[in-house]
Amino acid sequence: MSVSPYQQLEREWQRLHAFRGALSLLRWDAAVMMPRGSAAVRGNQLAALETETHALLTSPRISRLLDRAQASASMLGEWELTNLREMRRQRDRAIAMPIALITRLAQTVARAEGQWLEARAQQNFAIFAPHLEEVLNLIRDKAALVGQALNLSPYDALADEFSPGITTADYDSLFHGYGRRLPSLVREAIELQKARPVVPIAGRFNRAQQRALTVDVMQSMGFSFDHGRLDESTHAFTEGFRGDVRVTTRFNPDDCLSGLLGALHEAGHAMYANGLPAEWTEQPVGHDCGMALEESQSLLIEMILVRSRAFVRFLKPLLEKHFGVSGPEWHEENLYRQLTRVRRSPIRVEADELTYPLHVQLRYDLERQLLAGELSVAQLPEAWADQLEQRLGIRPDNAADGALQDIHWALGSFGYFPSYAMGAAIAAQLAEGLRRDLPELDAQISAGDFSGLIAWLGQHVHSFGARLKPQELILAATGKPISASASLRYLEAKYLEQSASSSAAA
Amino acid sequence: MSVSPYQQLEREWQRLHAFRGALSLLRWDAAVMMPRGSAAVRGNQLAALETETHALLTSPRISRLLDRAQASASMLGEWELTNLREMRRQRDRAIAMPIALITRLAQTVARAEGQWLEARAQQNFAIFAPHLEEVLNLIRDKAALVGQALNLSPYDALADEFSPGITTADYDSLFHGYGRRLPSLVREAIELQKARPVVPIAGRFNRAQQRALTVDVMQSMGFSFDHGRLDESTHAFTEGFRGDVRVTTRFNPDDCLSGLLGALHEAGHAMYANGLPAEWTEQPVGHDCGMALEESQSLLIEMILVRSRAFVRFLKPLLEKHFGVSGPEWHEENLYRQLTRVRRSPIRVEADELTYPLHVQLRYDLERQLLAGELSVAQLPEAWADQLEQRLGIRPDNAADGALQDIHWALGSFGYFPSYAMGAAIAAQLAEGLRRDLPELDAQISAGDFSGLIAWLGQHVHSFGARLKPQELILAATGKPISASASLRYLEAKYLEQSASSSAAA
Repeated sequence: MSVSPYQQLEREWQRLHAFRGALSLLRWDAAVMMPRGSAAVRGNQLAALETETHALLTSPRISRLLDRAQASASMLGEWELTNLREMRRQRDRAIAMPIALITRLAQTVARAEGQWLEARAQQNFAIFAPHLEEVLNLIRDKAALVGQALNLSPYDALADEFSPGITTADYDSLFHGYGRRLPSLVREAIELQKARPVVPIAGRFNRAQQRALTVDVMQSMGFSFDHGRLDESTHAFTEGFRGDVRVTTRFNPDDCLSGLLGALHEAGHAMYANGLPAEWTEQPVGHDCGMALEESQSLLIEMILVRSRAFVRFLKPLLEKHFGVSGPEWHEENLYRQLTRVRRSPIRVEADELTYPLHVQLRYDLERQLLAGELSVAQLPEAWADQLEQRLGIRPDNAADGALQDIHWALGSFGYFPSYAMGAAIAAQLAEGLRRDLPELDAQISAGDFSGLIAWLGQHVHSFGARLKPQELILAATGKPISASASLRYLEAKYLEQSASSSAAA
Repeated sequence: MSVSPYQQLEREWQRLHAFRGALSLLRWDAAVMMPRGSAAVRGNQLAALETETHALLTSPRISRLLDRAQASASMLGEWELTNLREMRRQRDRAIAMPIALITRLAQTVARAEGQWLEARAQQNFAIFAPHLEEVLNLIRDKAALVGQALNLSPYDALADEFSPGITTADYDSLFHGYGRRLPSLVREAIELQKARPVVPIAGRFNRAQQRALTVDVMQSMGFSFDHGRLDESTHAFTEGFRGDVRVTTRFNPDDCLSGLLGALHEAGHAMYANGLPAEWTEQPVGHDCGMALEESQSLLIEMILVRSRAFVRFLKPLLEKHFGVSGPEWHEENLYRQLTRVRRSPIRVEADELTYPLHVQLRYDLERQLLAGELSVAQLPEAWADQLEQRLGIRPDNAADGALQDIHWALGSFGYFPSYAMGAAIAAQLAEGLRRDLPELDAQISAGDFSGLIAWLGQHVHSFGARLKPQELILAATGKPISASASLRYLEAKYLEQSASSSAAA
């Protein structure tokens, strides 16, 4: 029996998926296991596989097969059609980027990353500035080329890589929604929590105990250690595809919760990966729906679920079991206050869920100004500090806590940041739908039963893969387009809570 | 400036090297880190990269470039010429193997490995027999096809993959040499050691302490943990190429030495890899000289060096430091006796250096008979037991300790075994040369100074890469062709030693 053009394409993408899985393992190993002197060797391996992937995507054979499959598209089902659309999308993006630009960008960001680390260590933005300039120039080229090919504005061409189908108009509307309420909400919440002091948690918590606690919680949540791992790395991340998904975190002996929270954030990504449709694992349509959706899954777990009274009820006995602790600082109400404390901090990754979108908006505004040439690299540190002051009323002490704090721009990831805030908005919107459909959610979570949560996410989000665009998916799941409304409702209810036990943590 | 065909070939092999490095990491991870449910995913990744490598090697472009480079070979230096020869060798072997046969073999050995494990667990050869039969049939096809292409006998075609340029005639002559003396030497040594009792080492030794000891010794030997790792796995192995070489071992809490010895065996391989010529790392001529040379490097360390009085002198204070032990069993003479005990055991991997070549010869004889159809799979367990009895005077208790003990045949590795014995012979021959050129070797080793040893091996072996064939390399290094003579001289001197302190280990 002859193999149709579409079936041949599926086979080619099976190979691509295997290459991408190998690439993912090479990156995981580089961050977790690799000896520090082996970076150059690893760089060559990554480059060879990435070049091969690009060559495959841009080959005349693939383009011919795409055309022929399209010509007989009427014989394809819905999933196949979307799969074909996603294949074309990958091909179009790949073809828009000349290999010379890819290579130059890879070399430039490799240098820029090193200089960013150095600049951070010395708290000296000037060290990084010329490298950021160079990255910016190449990213402008990329944005122009991809934008032309996909008929998108330059910034949308970049953003579309991370969250397909979401545009500047969507982000602007989201930040407009957040911007009208969040700054005052932050003030009100901080005022309110003055009457609700937190007994600080002191002491040292060894890594092995923190790890055992984290594994315990992850297993309760359904993370499969038969198809995944938990390791430590400098920055928490998730790598891999359905079947072998690995998360990392960083255990800090002085903070018994940050390593756990980091791991559970990543576990949200991992559960998304493992909930994707099994029969489409190797195909584009079987992959995730972009970074906004990815972040919604990790923030739904780390922020909405974990920072809830129900979860604290489940967590408390586990803390006692693994750390052998007791005392007022370990009481439920105190733990909850600890986990929901709002603070004006200059650092995004330490931000609470109230201030987080403001941090993201700052980056979104600045990166568009940088790309458009409205803001020079030299002006960036001052502009950063000004915007932070305007939004949160504080200024960073130095460049390391300001314009140097994130690695994204050094890596050429422009257009990535806004999907963080959209992820937060989507998470709250999904949580509303979830609570509507599953009124017993809190009772389940308190009892350590996460099956209702996972089943709902599986049914309404994970199992769709990339079948729907983010906007379509959220409309189908919640009946409403993506906006800040649900997020603001959730944040107001949680952080302006009046009825909370306001007795001292007892 | 135009790029010559030869230079284009070097670039293609750079890519191949990157792919092979990625393959190596995928295999390392599968044995050391991978979650157990991820084997199928990993299998797809390995298959995709192996298929890509094969496609590259057999592409018309490579063959055209090889022809054109050959036509202007007069412009190439010696290293380039050998490199071109090794490229051709890889191409010829790849082209001789149809992709259908490669795929079928890969599937068959994957099944056979599983059934071999099952058969071993049940001590039931019949479970494995039909799968071995299937592997044998495919390996006969492979031997015929490759033999035809390379103008070699079927067995030599297989053996040449592991140790290029070494043929059945070389192995026959080696085993003839060993066979005339070893069986009687084993008897004499066992007789002699009756008067030299060993105080057994008892107790439990935790993994962390064993690991710390092993790392300590490996660092003294010059193993670079900046370009390598030590991990634990079911079977000890080495993976990787110069720049990132990873070894594994297995720590047994009931045996404080076996994990160390396993790691040092692998460290011998790793030091070979790291001593290969830096400027040729990515090219065939910069790789090792085959398995016989590989084994010579690991056995020179694990057997000749580590099982010497000089090394025991260095090791003793480290054992005391890491295990906090003392007593008669930890005295130098007792440790030396422990490390040089000759035992009639049915298990190859536990064999001492006197009985080891006899174990290998048994497999060499049996695998040739199997391939030639002179021995049926059904007859194998009995033939194995008979041959072991004839050579060592013992019979295995069951099939797991007999014909099922090695994984090699299940994996289709026929023609591999004899390189183990040749490795032992080469190791002894190199050790003779080393002692001749470096009379102070023992004093250096006792003092924990391995630099003289490493420098000599670097100069006479490692730095040649694959520039010379094994026979040429050993002739250049030692002035003599490879034979069992040096090995027998070494074994006689060591195991028939009369002057040894024969006082009780005190």
